[in-house]
Amino acid sequence: MDAFTHIDAYWRAANYLSVGQIYLMDNPLLAESLRPEHIKPRLLGHWGTTPGLNFCFAHLNRVIRERDQDMIYIAGPGHGGPAAVAHAWLEGSYTEKYPDISQDAEGMRRLFRQFSFPGGIPSHVAPETPGSIHEGGELGYSLAHAYGAAFDNPHLVVACVIGDGEAETGPLAASWHSGKFLNPEHDGTVLPILHLNGYKIANPTVLARIPEDELVKLIEGYGYRPHIVSGDDPAVMHPLMAETLDEVFDEIAAFKDGRAERPPMIVLRTPKGWTGPRVVDGLPVEGTWRSHQVPLSEVRQNADHRAMLEEWMRSYRPQELFDERGQPVADILRTVPDGPRRMSANPHANGGELLKPLVLPDFRDYAVEVKSSASQSSEPTRVLGRFLRDVITANPATFRLMGPDETASNRLSAVFEATDRAWDAETLPTDEHLGPDGRVMEVLSEHLCQGWLEGYLLTGRHGLFNCYEAFIHIIDAMFNQHAKWLESSKKIPWRRPVASLNYLLSSHVWRQDHNGFSHQDPGFLDVVMNKKPEVVRVYLPPDANTLLSVADHCLRSRDYVNLVVAGKQPVLDLMPMDEAVAHCTRGLGILEWASSDAGTETDVVLACAGDVPTLETLAAAALLREYLPELRVRVVNVVDLMRLQPPSEHPHGMSDAEFDTVFTSGKPIIFNFHGYPWLIHRLTYRRHGHDNIHVRGYQEEGTTTTPFDMVMLNDIDRFHLVMDVIDRVPGLGASAAHLRQHMEDERLRARMHTREYGEDRPEIRDWTWPY
Amino acid sequence: MDAFTHIDAYWRAANYLSVGQIYLMDNPLLAESLRPEHIKPRLLGHWGTTPGLNFCFAHLNRVIRERDQDMIYIAGPGHGGPAAVAHAWLEGSYTEKYPDISQDAEGMRRLFRQFSFPGGIPSHVAPETPGSIHEGGELGYSLAHAYGAAFDNPHLVVACVIGDGEAETGPLAASWHSGKFLNPEHDGTVLPILHLNGYKIANPTVLARIPEDELVKLIEGYGYRPHIVSGDDPAVMHPLMAETLDEVFDEIAAFKDGRAERPPMIVLRTPKGWTGPRVVDGLPVEGTWRSHQVPLSEVRQNADHRAMLEEWMRSYRPQELFDERGQPVADILRTVPDGPRRMSANPHANGGELLKPLVLPDFRDYAVEVKSSASQSSEPTRVLGRFLRDVITANPATFRLMGPDETASNRLSAVFEATDRAWDAETLPTDEHLGPDGRVMEVLSEHLCQGWLEGYLLTGRHGLFNCYEAFIHIIDAMFNQHAKWLESSKKIPWRRPVASLNYLLSSHVWRQDHNGFSHQDPGFLDVVMNKKPEVVRVYLPPDANTLLSVADHCLRSRDYVNLVVAGKQPVLDLMPMDEAVAHCTRGLGILEWASSDAGTETDVVLACAGDVPTLETLAAAALLREYLPELRVRVVNVVDLMRLQPPSEHPHGMSDAEFDTVFTSGKPIIFNFHGYPWLIHRLTYRRHGHDNIHVRGYQEEGTTTTPFDMVMLNDIDRFHLVMDVIDRVPGLGASAAHLRQHMEDERLRARMHTREYGEDRPEIRDWTWPY
Repeated sequence: MDAFTHIDAYWRAANYLSVGQIYLMDNPLLAESLRPEHIKPRLLGHWGTTPGLNFCFAHLNRVIRERDQDMIYIAGPGHGGPAAVAHAWLEGSYTEKYPDISQDAEGMRRLFRQFSFPGGIPSHVAPETPGSIHEGGELGYSLAHAYGAAFDNPHLVVACVIGDGEAETGPLAASWHSGKFLNPEHDGTVLPILHLNGYKIANPTVLARIPEDELVKLIEGYGYRPHIVSGDDPAVMHPLMAETLDEVFDEIAAFKDGRAERPPMIVLRTPKGWTGPRVVDGLPVEGTWRSHQVPLSEVRQNADHRAMLEEWMRSYRPQELFDERGQPVADILRTVPDGPRRMSANPHANGGELLKPLVLPDFRDYAVEVKSSASQSSEPTRVLGRFLRDVITANPATFRLMGPDETASNRLSAVFEATDRAWDAETLPTDEHLGPDGRVMEVLSEHLCQGWLEGYLLTGRHGLFNCYEAFIHIIDAMFNQHAKWLESSKKIPWRRPVASLNYLLSSHVWRQDHNGFSHQDPGFLDVVMNKKPEVVRVYLPPDANTLLSVADHCLRSRDYVNLVVAGKQPVLDLMPMDEAVAHCTRGLGILEWASSDAGTETDVVLACAGDVPTLETLAAAALLREYLPELRVRVVNVVDLMRLQPPSEHPHGMSDAEFDTVFTSGKPIIFNFHGYPWLIHRLTYRRHGHDNIHVRGYQEEGTTTTPFDMVMLNDIDRFHLVMDVIDRVPGLGASAAHLRQHMEDERLRARMHTREYGEDRPEIRDWTWPY
Repeated sequence: MDAFTHIDAYWRAANYLSVGQIYLMDNPLLAESLRPEHIKPRLLGHWGTTPGLNFCFAHLNRVIRERDQDMIYIAGPGHGGPAAVAHAWLEGSYTEKYPDISQDAEGMRRLFRQFSFPGGIPSHVAPETPGSIHEGGELGYSLAHAYGAAFDNPHLVVACVIGDGEAETGPLAASWHSGKFLNPEHDGTVLPILHLNGYKIANPTVLARIPEDELVKLIEGYGYRPHIVSGDDPAVMHPLMAETLDEVFDEIAAFKDGRAERPPMIVLRTPKGWTGPRVVDGLPVEGTWRSHQVPLSEVRQNADHRAMLEEWMRSYRPQELFDERGQPVADILRTVPDGPRRMSANPHANGGELLKPLVLPDFRDYAVEVKSSASQSSEPTRVLGRFLRDVITANPATFRLMGPDETASNRLSAVFEATDRAWDAETLPTDEHLGPDGRVMEVLSEHLCQGWLEGYLLTGRHGLFNCYEAFIHIIDAMFNQHAKWLESSKKIPWRRPVASLNYLLSSHVWRQDHNGFSHQDPGFLDVVMNKKPEVVRVYLPPDANTLLSVADHCLRSRDYVNLVVAGKQPVLDLMPMDEAVAHCTRGLGILEWASSDAGTETDVVLACAGDVPTLETLAAAALLREYLPELRVRVVNVVDLMRLQPPSEHPHGMSDAEFDTVFTSGKPIIFNFHGYPWLIHRLTYRRHGHDNIHVRGYQEEGTTTTPFDMVMLNDIDRFHLVMDVIDRVPGLGASAAHLRQHMEDERLRARMHTREYGEDRPEIRDWTWPY
């Protein structure tokens, strides 16, 4: 034990500071006996997991110092906020980031008071917490974040404490296998520390209640060498943990240079609420779920509880830990690593500090040549794939492309000319494009794609997540949390901007020819739009060149979530690259060549957003031009959905005057939309012309059928759009009535042909702009 | 092999029928050589997983017959549609459900043609597929569904084939531990069959590429006894599979009566695309990812491919399998179980056939007595807990309450007077309310809660999922898929209605005092509203009695997803039970007692939905009554959100006349809403008075702070509502201007008090209706 006096002192100090944060708003050093007014009126914090987190942190610091190890710390247990804050304060980085929280008695008082206090800091590990890239609120993502941080950081160890509650979640359960995608040579190391404290909020945990031999098999089955550290006596646990860590870091070295086949991990089994009150009001607390939040809940009102709190805090012997000014004594500070080696100050955990812009080839070089608008087709994602291929080549260690086994299916296959899929499990001779250092990460788990990418971005790198549109909902909750992380980070001066999280949703709702109804859901747009306008952007480029322009823009941006929806199927090339750049820069615009209102007042606006709706809108415009040549039609395409909002709602929003100029303030607007139609109403309800906007979109109708049958099922087809125009433009007369009937007939013909022959009529399938 | 002739014949028949579905639109029996016009123009289907699914099905049928085993089959691999349809047709149940698909050559032709064909059936296992409770589109939920089906069905075996692609997902990875929540005596048995065919769309799979000893350890770590069936020679594989299944079902019997500690499972390792083309155009196909979809892709155009298809189909020797009329020969039919023992006709897989209504106590008996509106408080979920306790008692084997360890936290603890938490792992003396037969299922995985409940409901039982509001987003995608299942099922006459999926979101956005920003997200309402109005319902009961009324209604309903948002914190009791029932039946109504416009034209409408917004609205009405007594104010509370829509959009929608009667068509409406504000705009944008609606709601602002600070951060507080009224009602004069300033001052006072003392001012915290 003697060798561990300093570590134990550090641990006691961290525990003391953790309890103080949960309970006290004054008298931080217990200079006097606790009185009610020293206690916060609302006790909001979580003790249960905290002493275990502190224990790991204290011991890892020794390893950092002895081995000069670059290491960051991810606290998976949701409610470990007090622990992470305590360490940052002890290590001095808290005061560096927040000078008013000084490393003395007054700073300690403020540290305690601010925790979970109105106007203060959150109770979880959060963006406000120095040294963290991981929010502790929604559980399940710690291990995926850890792997994301480790990729392409060969010298980094990511220590990742996983709570046994969190370990029950799906995303965490999937994350164990991340090792099959990590290259020991070129990537860093993840050191999972499964912390079995036995309980979640009110229940035992699964992994704490299976036989130990099953647990060991499980971990070996996941591909790790488990080391078990179990007990509750600090005198035994300190040497055991230290010895184990020495072995573990030796094994890590062996794993990295190929002498060991599997990396190590640690199972730490300690009581929940370790070192806290054992029994309160006659009920066991330490070692049970009752220590999850505040073991003593009535400290302000109940003098017995208050005395127990004081006894508990004094059990850490604060007088040995802090001097009379409240500064940590030298013995404690001796255990703290220096400068950026401190886990609370490691620049990997404030990735913007390390971020370098991508080296980007000129996207214009990948442009499709367009001599005449809408007279030829390209597959937008295939074109983008060539650009991404060269992005990968130019940034061999700072860019990754994530996707759930859909990179080829989404037609980005050109990237495989430059790189492989990351793969560190067995290979067979028939395998293609698998390699230990591949830049493409494909695993059939959207959770892992998202979690890895978040970890990668938050440690200062770049990436893109390509996904089927419907299944991106699988990570709705993760998106929400990442957006909230960005929303909070933007308010924290020392958090440096990181690369945006870029989504490319291909294989979208309108082209699920193979897959049908279960693969049709464009609702992620609605989820994204609920987050703060400062951090979300939504783009619907209608063709290959606009996709290139949007992609370049997104890859250069910082601190956003960029959502790009673009199809993989051939779509008409609408404009040459120069026009595409201008169109994307404006975010929306009138397609003059498709409009027939030049120099006059328009009769009707055909607006569209999304590749398939745009095609149908153009076809409708052509039909109107042919059958109702007198009708003045304006075609408007929207790329940047946020432009539709007022500027008060989103920084990209158009002024009302601009909006009226494009959309008119009184003419019928038939808006053909990629997603659920009401999103357009939500964006435009304040506009003058809103009552004239008629939106078509996905109505939750579909199956495995032909592309044109799909658009007909949802009434976004060209014929229906013409009918909508006829229904809404007054005074069109008898020829329009005939045309309307003709359109009905065309719909019927199209449907009958499809039902009979199993494919769309060629003149619909291969339609191009006729003028 | 001789003993397996019949099984092999059945397997060949199923394979033949599967290939036929993928490729042919005519000439089903190969009566003549294949010509281009026999081939579908669009080849949309997936062969890769199909022969393995067929193999399992064929062998399980033998077990069913020999042991008279009640069994259903869940096909996890997403693209196994052709297999499930083939079996249903061979077993005769397809023809029973769809008489035009007769069991003869013409029926076979139609069977082939309809598959993945416009106007036909989807390519996945889907609601249209007899014998299935599991959609194969979005991967990850097969094993959770299997466990849900097994709970409380002691004699049932749920055979669950898990694809090795699916096995990479988080939800599936978490599902393995479901066994810790299953009681072998009172529940049925899940037989997982992990099908390692080695590949997903374009990549190898993780579990197929780890050493077999690691795989075995992993499975043992999950708590199963693995049996490995590996090979590609049918002559070897048939006896091996049969022998293994005999062992496995003996082990299941031993597990059920306590002789064995762990249940068995099977690892089936067969080539992807087994028995399909080995090499196509010089590239290996069988046993590689190239057989994922259609191994021969140009059959219509390419005569070589067409010849290979014919050779492939003839390799199954169809002339031995079907007679000249196209009927399966007797040898095949001999292997098929009888009547409801057929897995394609088992009533558990059409749960509505088995559904019995819940025995429901009279919810009125649990009412809170309310003598005077809004003068006392109750915790709505605590009141509901007593009702649920007695629902559980009255329905001991057909109702389960799911939640991620939050039942007590959500204050439903009364249920533990009647039951335990389900738990079949180790227990300790300090544990409380754990038992092998508990009706409460708590696991820290929203995915498992949702998946188990779906499986439970689709097999004809009832349940409720209680969850923190923010984290229900974790299962957005699962909700989407379940809603789509219901949408599709409603169009299928033989699918009988099942109990609704009921969500209770407590611990909602406004009361995350402990947890802060990461726990604040009311956006699940928006996700739900995107699904078809026929299947979704959203309720925001403002107090305990309305919650009871809503809950009773939801538990009686069928084929819906009911979303109920109700707080656990004390809220004012607004009305006695009779009024609550009337209010919930109307879905919204004027709170006369809080309004001051009786018998006159109103000046302003204060509308509200949700418990916290309702409290603030009432407080605002009281302030207006005090300070602007001449102002005529109408207070409207909305419980059933769908009432706001026009009847054309939702069956609950109000007519415009009704809407105008309640909300007026021209007066200012200040709508205080629980969720993101634009949802109200989306629902009401067609109403006459829409331009007068000003919505307050969650603006994505929050942290760990006091309840009143939270409402102030988002401007839904009483003071801000009064300011909104003053800003929008014309001609209020100087006293209103003074009041506005006073409200600003009150906000500042409230904030300063909170920052200083860490709690809300008592007169705000304990506010009740003053009249």
